[in-house]
Amino acid sequence: ELAQLTAAQFDTGLLSGKTVFITAGPTREALDPVRYISNHSSGKMGYALAQAAVDAGARVKLISGPVNLPAPPRMERVQVQSAQDMLAAAMDGIDSCDIFIAAAAVADYRPTAVSEHKLKKGAEEIMELRLVKNPDIVASVAALPRKPFTVGFAAETRDLLSYARSKLERKNLDLIVANDVSQPGIGFNSDENAVTLVSRDAALVLPQTSKRQLASQLIRQIAELYNRAP
Amino acid sequence: ELAQLTAAQFDTGLLSGKTVFITAGPTREALDPVRYISNHSSGKMGYALAQAAVDAGARVKLISGPVNLPAPPRMERVQVQSAQDMLAAAMDGIDSCDIFIAAAAVADYRPTAVSEHKLKKGAEEIMELRLVKNPDIVASVAALPRKPFTVGFAAETRDLLSYARSKLERKNLDLIVANDVSQPGIGFNSDENAVTLVSRDAALVLPQTSKRQLASQLIRQIAELYNRAP
Repeated sequence: ELAQLTAAQFDTGLLSGKTVFITAGPTREALDPVRYISNHSSGKMGYALAQAAVDAGARVKLISGPVNLPAPPRMERVQVQSAQDMLAAAMDGIDSCDIFIAAAAVADYRPTAVSEHKLKKGAEEIMELRLVKNPDIVASVAALPRKPFTVGFAAETRDLLSYARSKLERKNLDLIVANDVSQPGIGFNSDENAVTLVSRDAALVLPQTSKRQLASQLIRQIAELYNRAP
Repeated sequence: ELAQLTAAQFDTGLLSGKTVFITAGPTREALDPVRYISNHSSGKMGYALAQAAVDAGARVKLISGPVNLPAPPRMERVQVQSAQDMLAAAMDGIDSCDIFIAAAAVADYRPTAVSEHKLKKGAEEIMELRLVKNPDIVASVAALPRKPFTVGFAAETRDLLSYARSKLERKNLDLIVANDVSQPGIGFNSDENAVTLVSRDAALVLPQTSKRQLASQLIRQIAELYNRAP
């Protein structure tokens, strides 16, 4: 029994018995039946994290926006479109969630009203689009009375570290995975990434490597911090 | 020699010696380095038309927005993002173009200014987005002094025929391929489609079938009208 316990603390068993929710990909916010606002997230990082969490023994629910990736094996995938859908899927069963990893690139704003019919191109040269702020999914999870260990992402084009730490504190997160999307060859739509892990009292740089490799390193770091948490 | 000439007028040779430009897919209009406005066009119809035109003996330039489709064989593919890029690619070599088929779902509007850095989510609950009308690619082509035979598409959710005919006349097109995107199972992102061909003096319904089948029928109709045109 002691041997089993010890084994479980190594590598593949790092998250055994734990439930991990991971959001991935972009969201799409409908303007009308054909048009939407979205972003360049490919979902690759979130999917790689989900795979690494399963490999570490966790039960995983992958909450995915529209991406062109197959459903990974040995996990539950819930497919959503909008930020509101993603929030509902995240809150569904959240009581059982030990670690919440918000890797999705959620649209900050959505159109105030969705037109039922396709908007006709008018004579107007200029159009004003009225947008309303979307719910903040990771902050909503971190605000729960019995919050899971909550990991956010910060995709920035400048002042990465200071934005990341202020986001961590403002949203009551346990960890931020910050990446500089202005660097070519990493991040959005790329197969590689390099990130800085930012907690309340430390920062750790994980240098550029494949998203798959990076996902394993991230899951190991997250598991260690989770197991150390009070 | 006579036998060759006659053979060329049948099926596979319907467009031999002709140059066809086809636009396909959506366009993406950047809001900032990560966000964009787009639409649900899969590009399948445009790609199927390009294939059918090649099969009919044409030289084809396929001008494609961002889609998840491989480059079809035996044609030139030019990949673009925005409507402005697509217009430039369409006008490049337009003098040699005999038939222009505008199957792309071009964004009607784009943000007035693209932010160089990712827009930070502010405290504001409401955001106003200022959009400016994009160039009308098919109308720009049809307005050329030596215009090619110009085919437009109309994706509508209501009043299909009346919108299509008014578009035909307003934009100086030779033919409109109109489809009702409010019908489930056809059109955007689907593998099947059903369309109504609308010319100045006639309308022809092509019933629901695979986009590949429909593309062959469309290319045959377009070739016949083109060859009959003064």
